[in-house]
Amino acid sequence: MAKDAEVAETYSSKDYQDPPPAPLFDSDELTKWSFYRALIAEFIATLLFLYITVLTVIGYNSQTDTKKTGTDACGGVGILGIAWAFGGMIFILVYCTAGISGGHINPAVTFGLFLARKVSLVRAVMYMLAQCLGAICGCGLVKAFQKSYYNNYGGGANRLAAGYNKGTGLGAEIIGTFVLVYTVFSATDPKRNARDSHVPVLAPLPIGFAVFMVHLATIPITGTGINPARSFGAAVIYNKDKAWDDQWIFWVGPFIGAAIAAFYHQYILRAGAAKALGSFRSTA
Amino acid sequence: MAKDAEVAETYSSKDYQDPPPAPLFDSDELTKWSFYRALIAEFIATLLFLYITVLTVIGYNSQTDTKKTGTDACGGVGILGIAWAFGGMIFILVYCTAGISGGHINPAVTFGLFLARKVSLVRAVMYMLAQCLGAICGCGLVKAFQKSYYNNYGGGANRLAAGYNKGTGLGAEIIGTFVLVYTVFSATDPKRNARDSHVPVLAPLPIGFAVFMVHLATIPITGTGINPARSFGAAVIYNKDKAWDDQWIFWVGPFIGAAIAAFYHQYILRAGAAKALGSFRSTA
Amino acid sequence: MAKDAEVAETYSSKDYQDPPPAPLFDSDELTKWSFYRALIAEFIATLLFLYITVLTVIGYNSQTDTKKTGTDACGGVGILGIAWAFGGMIFILVYCTAGISGGHINPAVTFGLFLARKVSLVRAVMYMLAQCLGAICGCGLVKAFQKSYYNNYGGGANRLAAGYNKGTGLGAEIIGTFVLVYTVFSATDPKRNARDSHVPVLAPLPIGFAVFMVHLATIPITGTGINPARSFGAAVIYNKDKAWDDQWIFWVGPFIGAAIAAFYHQYILRAGAAKALGSFRSTA
Amino acid sequence: MAKDAEVAETYSSKDYQDPPPAPLFDSDELTKWSFYRALIAEFIATLLFLYITVLTVIGYNSQTDTKKTGTDACGGVGILGIAWAFGGMIFILVYCTAGISGGHINPAVTFGLFLARKVSLVRAVMYMLAQCLGAICGCGLVKAFQKSYYNNYGGGANRLAAGYNKGTGLGAEIIGTFVLVYTVFSATDPKRNARDSHVPVLAPLPIGFAVFMVHLATIPITGTGINPARSFGAAVIYNKDKAWDDQWIFWVGPFIGAAIAAFYHQYILRAGAAKALGSFRSTA
Repeated sequence: MAKDAEVAETYSSKDYQDPPPAPLFDSDELTKWSFYRALIAEFIATLLFLYITVLTVIGYNSQTDTKKTGTDACGGVGILGIAWAFGGMIFILVYCTAGISGGHINPAVTFGLFLARKVSLVRAVMYMLAQCLGAICGCGLVKAFQKSYYNNYGGGANRLAAGYNKGTGLGAEIIGTFVLVYTVFSATDPKRNARDSHVPVLAPLPIGFAVFMVHLATIPITGTGINPARSFGAAVIYNKDKAWDDQWIFWVGPFIGAAIAAFYHQYILRAGAAKALGSFRSTA
Repeated sequence: MAKDAEVAETYSSKDYQDPPPAPLFDSDELTKWSFYRALIAEFIATLLFLYITVLTVIGYNSQTDTKKTGTDACGGVGILGIAWAFGGMIFILVYCTAGISGGHINPAVTFGLFLARKVSLVRAVMYMLAQCLGAICGCGLVKAFQKSYYNNYGGGANRLAAGYNKGTGLGAEIIGTFVLVYTVFSATDPKRNARDSHVPVLAPLPIGFAVFMVHLATIPITGTGINPARSFGAAVIYNKDKAWDDQWIFWVGPFIGAAIAAFYHQYILRAGAAKALGSFRSTA
Repeated sequence: MAKDAEVAETYSSKDYQDPPPAPLFDSDELTKWSFYRALIAEFIATLLFLYITVLTVIGYNSQTDTKKTGTDACGGVGILGIAWAFGGMIFILVYCTAGISGGHINPAVTFGLFLARKVSLVRAVMYMLAQCLGAICGCGLVKAFQKSYYNNYGGGANRLAAGYNKGTGLGAEIIGTFVLVYTVFSATDPKRNARDSHVPVLAPLPIGFAVFMVHLATIPITGTGINPARSFGAAVIYNKDKAWDDQWIFWVGPFIGAAIAAFYHQYILRAGAAKALGSFRSTA
Repeated sequence: MAKDAEVAETYSSKDYQDPPPAPLFDSDELTKWSFYRALIAEFIATLLFLYITVLTVIGYNSQTDTKKTGTDACGGVGILGIAWAFGGMIFILVYCTAGISGGHINPAVTFGLFLARKVSLVRAVMYMLAQCLGAICGCGLVKAFQKSYYNNYGGGANRLAAGYNKGTGLGAEIIGTFVLVYTVFSATDPKRNARDSHVPVLAPLPIGFAVFMVHLATIPITGTGINPARSFGAAVIYNKDKAWDDQWIFWVGPFIGAAIAAFYHQYILRAGAAKALGSFRSTA
């Protein structure tokens, strides 16, 4: 019956409603508890994200340290485990915070959604601040727990691997963030919501997998940023020259990638979406 | 159509109903078969949880034992495999027991849900007993199957790794349990249920992933408890000094973490949830 | 709205309908194309299951063969990869065949569902035949592709590892199959269907994970059977003494485990399920 | 309520509607923006697919290069990580493009759906062109980023491993593609859609897992093609004799496998599907 309704709607011209674009400044927002609650949720989520992932990275570096372990370097989590840590944490944190703050946990995602007018400028800026602060605290916790390991094993900071130039690193960050933000736009598209009644719960899984995939591919190049708060927090706490030298790459790259993804989704994929909807259902 | 209804509800002030808080003592409960059935389900689930995971841990320790295997230590399950065993078992056991007992399988989860008044005190205490008993039996089964391996390879007991002090171990347990119990609260929030009609089935996946993530990060520090029944059962069957010395960490840490998660969810995230609901839908 | 209906139903005494028990002999079945189609689907699914998994096992043994590869034994799939191959194939094959044959792909599952009167005796026997035949053909394909590898690397046959006695192997098979069949019963429970409208699609995921988990734990002991067709097909094609000596373990163990799971689900968990349903919703 | 409706429909003879077969030539299609948008989506998706996966493969080859790393070859992503990269990318890309182009990203899938008359000939040919072009650009990006690594570590090109003959490689590609396209047909079956209202969102997960599984099994044999665009793009950019010598295997094999899957699904599994539907529900 819900089915029949859906089939019928297929041939209507527009079975979903775009929410109106968010205003740039929404002073009303600042008077609501829900706004501050969202900031707290973003702060805590980014803190937990950095805490778990940096701990995993440092564990990995300790496990593969041949000076320390001799030949038995095999039983660790591997780069695969690191990639799972980043992707899996995004999966559960987006799942937990989606209903409170929208589940960004990443300034590049916030920037992309701002460009698409899904959040106001005020909210975007405040989210980014909360995310950066959360990332710093998350890395700080790891350092507080195990200071010598933290410093010896690189502190989870992003940097260019030897043998790659800055252009390659920038390109890797741009495309990696594009993959992530493109998935975020696809998963939260109101057109998709109109057809599938349970997207808010399922969207976190492909978003988490997108992060997992990009890490598998680009950990050997830049350690994979695609999240300026993550790179910034690690650099602040690790605080060595190399981490700061390349820092701009992990802000410029993700923001460019997010902007391209926003453009691709809004102007290429969504244009004429309504009238095309009927003709395409049969191929899905 | 179900869609239209949902859209309409967005602007109503409260589209969900909190269940009334559970009473502390509910003598009525004790007269029902469903109560004892729930205890049996918790007992069996915790037994299976410990059986599978401790077997995996011992297999891993055997595979990476350089004295035994020489250079070929590589093809084992790795720490990644151990983390999957813990997370994956929680996924399937929560899936299987959610409809019978609520799918706790962990005294820290039971404690958190008791603090939030989701279960009565009697039920909470009885669940914890069933879980600890199940954990002891699960470890006992592993020891019965392979006694020499069990003793040689540490019996899956939690203990602090060399080089970490007790404060670090306690902190790791607190934050790890916070991640788990926060995910449990998010997944079982009645507000979420009101919007997403299929949460009871999907909730086990992020809960299992939360366990997976925490293990990736903290296996090198404490072996990862975040479940007092798991630590207690392994300590009882392994029964060596080191396992008992650190045992308090694996009770105090998870209970503190669960309490913070309950507080965070009930007082920060849920406060004013109703009136905020409408304004936030567009950012999800 | 669908929500309201569900809430209302919570307090009704019975919001689901058990299908009537399947008759032992249903001659009507034999006249239907759908019966033979189901046999074909089981045959093809078991063939693909053995083909992919045995190929993975042989690849693993080749990658970790220190005689062949020297020290570089590290980049293979690992036991973790083998466990994924078994669990992942069950996930996709149950997903693909659930609507055609019920998606058993395992004589132990068929046996458990027969004991619970979900399938007729005729259907159960014919399914097992189709499964065993499919398993033989799947292994045969692997041997045809790479005969020398197949024989050198054990042919994917189940056998007891050195150092374990037959009782341990039998116990491991019993509990492992219990985990799997218990998950199958939980996932296909009509009570669950009544509450969650999309179980038929989601059930394959926890079932696949159950297989994945059991393999992580018991590959070092028996290579993990928990599926008599899988063990039988590999033994027929590999056809060496050792594989046949232990074969009975891989039939007796899974059938006992499936019987216990059927008993546990039907007599412990389902008894009084209807009247308990209301009181338990709030704890889920 | 939706439940009651579904139960009622179980006994009706046909609760779903097959879409009419797509015409061979549909000139109308060519006048629509949605057609060109679909081509763009396939192009970008295949580009991202090759970019991420080939980068992962090259990273793996670099990590396991014993000349370069000495004994410490263990912490890499492993063949398991490569298999995840291919399977995971298909999961997220099918998820993202399903609503735009149907989410093929693979000429063999397009060919299978064309044989089943789900897409017109014009669309099928244009999709394949877009996919091959996207694959070339994706590999080109990787080469542009790290030319020396790209050439040293095989460029992600498919080729027969030493010790396997062409017949084995062809067989592996045929069965592997069969597994994938069979899963695609099962997931997008309109019969399934009629019963499960949320298939369009969940279908990508088993499809991605099918790709993951086939890679686990056949990476040691052919590197796993099962996607002619992927093999072609890598061969064009790598452009060495060996990659071209075996290229035909990676076109003929997948197309034969897709054709068998289309035949199996349309003539074996779907025949008489309507009248069988009622009798089979109870066994699922």
